[in-house]
Amino acid sequence: MPRINDHYLKLQAGYLFPEIGRRVSAFAEAHPEARLIKLGIGDVTEPLPEACRTAMIRAVNALGKRDSFHGYGPEQGYAWLREAIAENDYVARGCEIDASEIFVSDGSKCDSGNILDILASGTANRFAVCDPVYPVYVDTNVMAGNTGEATGSRYAGLVYLPMTAANAFTPAIPDAPVDVVYLCYPNNPTGAVASRQTLTKWVDWANAHGTLILFDAAYHAFITDPDIPHSIYEIPGARDCAIEFRSFSKNAGFTGTRCAFTVVPRGLTGKDADGHDVALHGLWNRRQSTKFNGVSYIVQRGAEAVYSEEGRSQVAELIAFYLENARLIREALTDGGMDVHGGVNAPYVWIKTPGGATSWDFFDTLLNQCHVVGTPGSGFGAAGEGYFRISAFNSRENVEEALGRIAKLKG
Amino acid sequence: MPRINDHYLKLQAGYLFPEIGRRVSAFAEAHPEARLIKLGIGDVTEPLPEACRTAMIRAVNALGKRDSFHGYGPEQGYAWLREAIAENDYVARGCEIDASEIFVSDGSKCDSGNILDILASGTANRFAVCDPVYPVYVDTNVMAGNTGEATGSRYAGLVYLPMTAANAFTPAIPDAPVDVVYLCYPNNPTGAVASRQTLTKWVDWANAHGTLILFDAAYHAFITDPDIPHSIYEIPGARDCAIEFRSFSKNAGFTGTRCAFTVVPRGLTGKDADGHDVALHGLWNRRQSTKFNGVSYIVQRGAEAVYSEEGRSQVAELIAFYLENARLIREALTDGGMDVHGGVNAPYVWIKTPGGATSWDFFDTLLNQCHVVGTPGSGFGAAGEGYFRISAFNSRENVEEALGRIAKLKG
Repeated sequence: MPRINDHYLKLQAGYLFPEIGRRVSAFAEAHPEARLIKLGIGDVTEPLPEACRTAMIRAVNALGKRDSFHGYGPEQGYAWLREAIAENDYVARGCEIDASEIFVSDGSKCDSGNILDILASGTANRFAVCDPVYPVYVDTNVMAGNTGEATGSRYAGLVYLPMTAANAFTPAIPDAPVDVVYLCYPNNPTGAVASRQTLTKWVDWANAHGTLILFDAAYHAFITDPDIPHSIYEIPGARDCAIEFRSFSKNAGFTGTRCAFTVVPRGLTGKDADGHDVALHGLWNRRQSTKFNGVSYIVQRGAEAVYSEEGRSQVAELIAFYLENARLIREALTDGGMDVHGGVNAPYVWIKTPGGATSWDFFDTLLNQCHVVGTPGSGFGAAGEGYFRISAFNSRENVEEALGRIAKLKG
Repeated sequence: MPRINDHYLKLQAGYLFPEIGRRVSAFAEAHPEARLIKLGIGDVTEPLPEACRTAMIRAVNALGKRDSFHGYGPEQGYAWLREAIAENDYVARGCEIDASEIFVSDGSKCDSGNILDILASGTANRFAVCDPVYPVYVDTNVMAGNTGEATGSRYAGLVYLPMTAANAFTPAIPDAPVDVVYLCYPNNPTGAVASRQTLTKWVDWANAHGTLILFDAAYHAFITDPDIPHSIYEIPGARDCAIEFRSFSKNAGFTGTRCAFTVVPRGLTGKDADGHDVALHGLWNRRQSTKFNGVSYIVQRGAEAVYSEEGRSQVAELIAFYLENARLIREALTDGGMDVHGGVNAPYVWIKTPGGATSWDFFDTLLNQCHVVGTPGSGFGAAGEGYFRISAFNSRENVEEALGRIAKLKG
């Protein structure tokens, strides 16, 4: 009889977003007349850029002719896409990253979970996460057997780095030894950003202690302040300690189209059981070659178009649109007397729940009284309790309507 | 310092197809004038069906309008695709499989590796594979720590079931206890098929011994004999012992477009450490929700069109085309005095290497003298030594040209 992976049984009841989905469905069923506005899950709402669509239609047509048909592509992604990424996202910003260090994938969520495949599991590595945190980092560590049981929402064996108003949403560098730390900037869920100085501290500390940084830059496109780094590789020394995750989901609206990439610098190493250095690049390449088959040719052509002149300008418009939503949300809620964070250089606004309500209570209040869906901060971790995330991903009309309803709730 | 997954260091030098790629590149560089014909990797060559292209272009256009934009879809796949699969691939063939048991993914290669995530690793389960075997089954078990070191091409701890001319390519059911067995029919690489009687024996044995069958039916569309089952679920009792992998790669030519699915029947269970039954459906659903983000909306619409009237007829034409290639290969090589297997109800022809050559020697001979690329049988396992796989995936012109060149080699 097959034995199952018992670590799955340690997982808390539901992944956050399915739980929200269940509550929303139940409400919608009971109130079919209510016009729900979703500012919960970080899903884009605006049309896919025309440059990407044109490129994808051209790609679909190419597959219709024998001479331009594409079967299996390289598991790592097509060279033309990897080169466009290296040139535009890295070399242009002064980072020494080349195309061979870029691995195109179908999602940062997948990559940030799958990266654990190449690391030792169990107690061999000590992992640190911020709190609140994108739940996938934690849940995939639980599944891999890198944690003990949960007490409340915290798993034994993980190091949690609180990120709250008390430390201005800048988690302290761990004082205990840590082998791997997840950082996400601009941050999901708090909307906090990391200055060059903050990132330099992390990189210096990581290199001093041999810590691997897993840097999630899925929201980098929302950075408008020229002093804030988009990539960890803008920090000297980061090639020796960091893997970076990037996505086309939030810049070009690819949440339903699916394309992302992971950067694994050559020369970045881990230790084997005998204490020898082993290059992570080779391990990840082997993982991807064996357990992945590349992203759709059609989608890769769409992603390539993000770097065209039209693509860049259309993405810039999308970003500006969502950032204006964020500004409206921030200002309206601040005017309404709430304690508001994030929403600058980031698409997420992070508020203190009014009147000391719990995160889920405030979720239910907003849902039941305003027909607005947000995300309870406690769903992202113990230190998120008493906070609430509002996403800037929606139409202007819906954002304004939602803010109007919330204003009435306050009044 | 992060510890790596040491199990990766047990992996043999190269995954088969990259190694072929390296040899072919070296040859092409040394002989830029040679017109290579590739009958190696099982990659399709003919244009994508028009029905799929039309549906994908419609989907791309839909993403260009706010009202028909699609962001994150269900991680399990859209209901309309899961329902089309259930109805056409299962219910229509008398299998009791419903849409909720189907998980749409970006590839069977990925799924057949990822399925190990939900099973215990190490020595908790005993895994059996056929030999020769699709290398991904073996390599992903090595990576997960389910094997010991390799001796030659065989890893300690795996049960190998030889599949050679001596047993008419019908591996014997293991006499030792096995927790999980991989079966692939129509078989890659031998082109063998399994009769209803053979599959019934496997299912009855699996249910008697509590063994989980991982059934890879990626090539089912090539079955023309009405007596050969397309799905393991055509066998009574299979819902209680089998997971099935399917793909759109080889029927509708999606190798570069990427769509597949895995069927996990509700009620199928494994044991936890305390000996309790745990449903594999729930575990796989959790795995996919946490570590996967669904397949591109565009691609899912393309896959749905496979089941339309036009799609079915266009896929049937593709299959008939490749099967005719297989027939030509089989007959020409048989006429040339070779010992030829497979290629009926399957796109792979499996030959005994002439003159007792090793598989890689014959690979080099074909490459150097005929400029034809095939796949060395030994790359699929020890019992594949002395065999060679020729794929029917190419244009008629290339197949005929390759056969002409091989005929001269023989003469």
